[in-house]
Amino acid sequence: AIAGAAAAQGQPDVAALRDAALKDDLAWDITEGLTTEVGPRLAGTEAEKRARDWAVKRLTALGFANVRVEPFDMPVWVRGEEKAEIVSPFPQPLVLAALGNSGATPANGITAEVVGFESFADLQAAPASAVKGKIVFVSHAMKATQDGSGYGPFGTARRQGPSEASRKGAAAIVIRSIGTDYHRNPHTGVQTFAEGVKPIPAAALSLPDAEQLQRILKRGQPVRMKLVLTPRNIGKRQSGNVIAEVPGSDPAAGVVLVACHLDSWDQGTGAIDDAAGCGIVTAAAKRIAEAGVPRRTIRIVWFGAEEVGLFGGLDYRAKRGGEKHAIIAESDFGADRVWKVNSQGPATAKPAIDRLVAALSPLGIVQGSTTRASGSDIGPMAADGMSTIELSQDGTRYFDYHHTPDDTLDKVDPEQLRQNVAAWTAMLAVMAHAPEELASPVRPRN
Amino acid sequence: AIAGAAAAQGQPDVAALRDAALKDDLAWDITEGLTTEVGPRLAGTEAEKRARDWAVKRLTALGFANVRVEPFDMPVWVRGEEKAEIVSPFPQPLVLAALGNSGATPANGITAEVVGFESFADLQAAPASAVKGKIVFVSHAMKATQDGSGYGPFGTARRQGPSEASRKGAAAIVIRSIGTDYHRNPHTGVQTFAEGVKPIPAAALSLPDAEQLQRILKRGQPVRMKLVLTPRNIGKRQSGNVIAEVPGSDPAAGVVLVACHLDSWDQGTGAIDDAAGCGIVTAAAKRIAEAGVPRRTIRIVWFGAEEVGLFGGLDYRAKRGGEKHAIIAESDFGADRVWKVNSQGPATAKPAIDRLVAALSPLGIVQGSTTRASGSDIGPMAADGMSTIELSQDGTRYFDYHHTPDDTLDKVDPEQLRQNVAAWTAMLAVMAHAPEELASPVRPRN
Ligand SMILES: [Zn+2]
Ligand SMILES: [Zn+2]
Ligand SMILES: [Zn+2]
Ligand SMILES: [Zn+2]
Repeated sequence: AIAGAAAAQGQPDVAALRDAALKDDLAWDITEGLTTEVGPRLAGTEAEKRARDWAVKRLTALGFANVRVEPFDMPVWVRGEEKAEIVSPFPQPLVLAALGNSGATPANGITAEVVGFESFADLQAAPASAVKGKIVFVSHAMKATQDGSGYGPFGTARRQGPSEASRKGAAAIVIRSIGTDYHRNPHTGVQTFAEGVKPIPAAALSLPDAEQLQRILKRGQPVRMKLVLTPRNIGKRQSGNVIAEVPGSDPAAGVVLVACHLDSWDQGTGAIDDAAGCGIVTAAAKRIAEAGVPRRTIRIVWFGAEEVGLFGGLDYRAKRGGEKHAIIAESDFGADRVWKVNSQGPATAKPAIDRLVAALSPLGIVQGSTTRASGSDIGPMAADGMSTIELSQDGTRYFDYHHTPDDTLDKVDPEQLRQNVAAWTAMLAVMAHAPEELASPVRPRN
Repeated sequence: AIAGAAAAQGQPDVAALRDAALKDDLAWDITEGLTTEVGPRLAGTEAEKRARDWAVKRLTALGFANVRVEPFDMPVWVRGEEKAEIVSPFPQPLVLAALGNSGATPANGITAEVVGFESFADLQAAPASAVKGKIVFVSHAMKATQDGSGYGPFGTARRQGPSEASRKGAAAIVIRSIGTDYHRNPHTGVQTFAEGVKPIPAAALSLPDAEQLQRILKRGQPVRMKLVLTPRNIGKRQSGNVIAEVPGSDPAAGVVLVACHLDSWDQGTGAIDDAAGCGIVTAAAKRIAEAGVPRRTIRIVWFGAEEVGLFGGLDYRAKRGGEKHAIIAESDFGADRVWKVNSQGPATAKPAIDRLVAALSPLGIVQGSTTRASGSDIGPMAADGMSTIELSQDGTRYFDYHHTPDDTLDKVDPEQLRQNVAAWTAMLAVMAHAPEELASPVRPRN
């Protein structure tokens, strides 16, 4: 009873903070500002550097403490020219975008016959003789889902397709974009050639182009494609994580880490991926800071270089993974409404999780898993066993825009963005102040 | 009464033909075939030549009579490189497409300050001193409408904006695309510099880019843009109209002309603009041909070179405008459902129009104007006073795709396409067989 009374003392009014956040404008201002005043910000480029400067200035102006950049180096790949055309039997251009770390064609391109596969599994099953010297084309049938669960299995065509094609001697690979829209905006994304595998040109066709190529192949005549892709590896460059804090009253209670990523792909302005995430977590932290000193330090991290291989998250883990983290969470799945909360943590955290679930319910958020939660940059630390909260967003239209030129501010719905801020505000109101032990007893090695 | 009995003789069962057309596959086959096997087909290019060859082969195979090409020459403008970027204060690329007949920048581009106007009227009202040496930007607020009526007034920014900007000494002009979607696919379209006006580079920004530029301008700092546009005029080339007929039993009754245009803009495959139109009118004509010999000859014209200035329609009018046309009609507003029928013609045609209105009603089509109807290639002949039928399609989403790379087969809804075929079949069943005089007594000069 004494502990209960102590716990009640200094606890914020979670419901009031949550409901006030439904009128939030800060998340929008950050999203609008970053996408307008910086725009695209590919990891390791001058644009990402400008984004870090913008972030430091903005987070400082918002009154956060300990605002700083933690730099790290990472290899940088940049897009070049990208053109494709059917040479025969039906000459016409196709729209595509190189995948991250794609190899290059000569400047004047390559021309080869196309061999089509309906899935990554079909490519795997094919003999090398069917592929050698050809341009591999992999289509698939990913559909939009609320939880985005198609991205894992269907995304294999992007993540492993290029290596598999290269192993079989393909001249290049083009895949149907890992996306769900019908616009001529291809979906890029990272892939990494497996150890010892020769990089080959690798690109994604927009969905209309992929289906056009399927129709052309179905005519049964040999199809020849010309491909010009001239991306380059420009060596190691600097990226960095931008960190800001709301200092807590009890350093021994561990930090509450709320994250997003600052870098974006190069063709859109990274509004839903992930300026909105930075807006959401920062607006929520600001609201908690204004409500009084929390028990735990809230650490905001705008990670660098997520898109191209989680470099920021891994750098943070290497440098700070050994610190006591009460709980970690990241917003990186767009700006549509939160519909589910997943969590992982020790038994001692259960009362706090229960209070959180109750506080989220009026926002239309249901309880998901209580044993498994993750995130993008924080994924490796979550896998290490750190206590994690995952506020799952509605992903039904996420893969319409994900990693395309179409990821722009107009795709952010201000009302749904506010619901996100309310959910994150409730989460921080509960977790930053919780009297219970939230941290996992297992401390990750690093 | 004798005339009535004669009229009834040999009249087709309009309702039965109409309803059978709701199961049509031919319009889809033509649309799919032309967009897949030819793809983009800019007027006067090799691609449009391939489209004519395809059309002749297909129309011949369908059993139409007098299949032929009527060639004509026209000036050809082709797209070059097109790139734009904000140089300061917020460096970032913008997506745009040159407008038809745009002037060119030097190969390495031009850089100038941007001056923004919220409408064409604002540009008109501006003193030359506000514009001279600058890149003019015109935004506007066109919204989607069922009848597409915004295209006239808002389209002024595209049609007259470049000439107006040039007169005032602008270095170039970029407009917000005349479109209603939020995708990074700019809407091109034709514009013609007024007599004596120097061509300047002229392009359309996609809507997300146009709104980005507005946000950047609103920050109040001088905005500098770099623009690279290298289109070229390649001189006179050949285009042509493809014509096919269903011969009628009564040459004196005049022809019923049903039209579409074969050419398309260069970036999409011209599915809704206007392969679908060719599919619709051809499928309807084929159904009437199969039902027996009509009284009037049905003449199908797949016009060439519509997009770049109605060259095909004007050539037809010059060569054949003096022939007796009982009625003319064109399908060139996408593939969504017909919702209204407009007509113009002599009083003698009224009973036939009434029968048509009754036959269209079960398809959910209402009567519109009875004194004014038009079309694209046939527009000049309709303006001359020829009897015209206009089957108006739902244009709510037409300007989402119009003149963009996104005009591809996936935008065609097979069910709505069939409703179009049913409407055109009913129209031909009534008009090709009507015993009444349909032709306007005023014969156009030519
Ligand atoms: Zn992301
Ligand atoms: Zn991403
Ligand atoms: Zn058209
Ligand atoms: Zn058009």
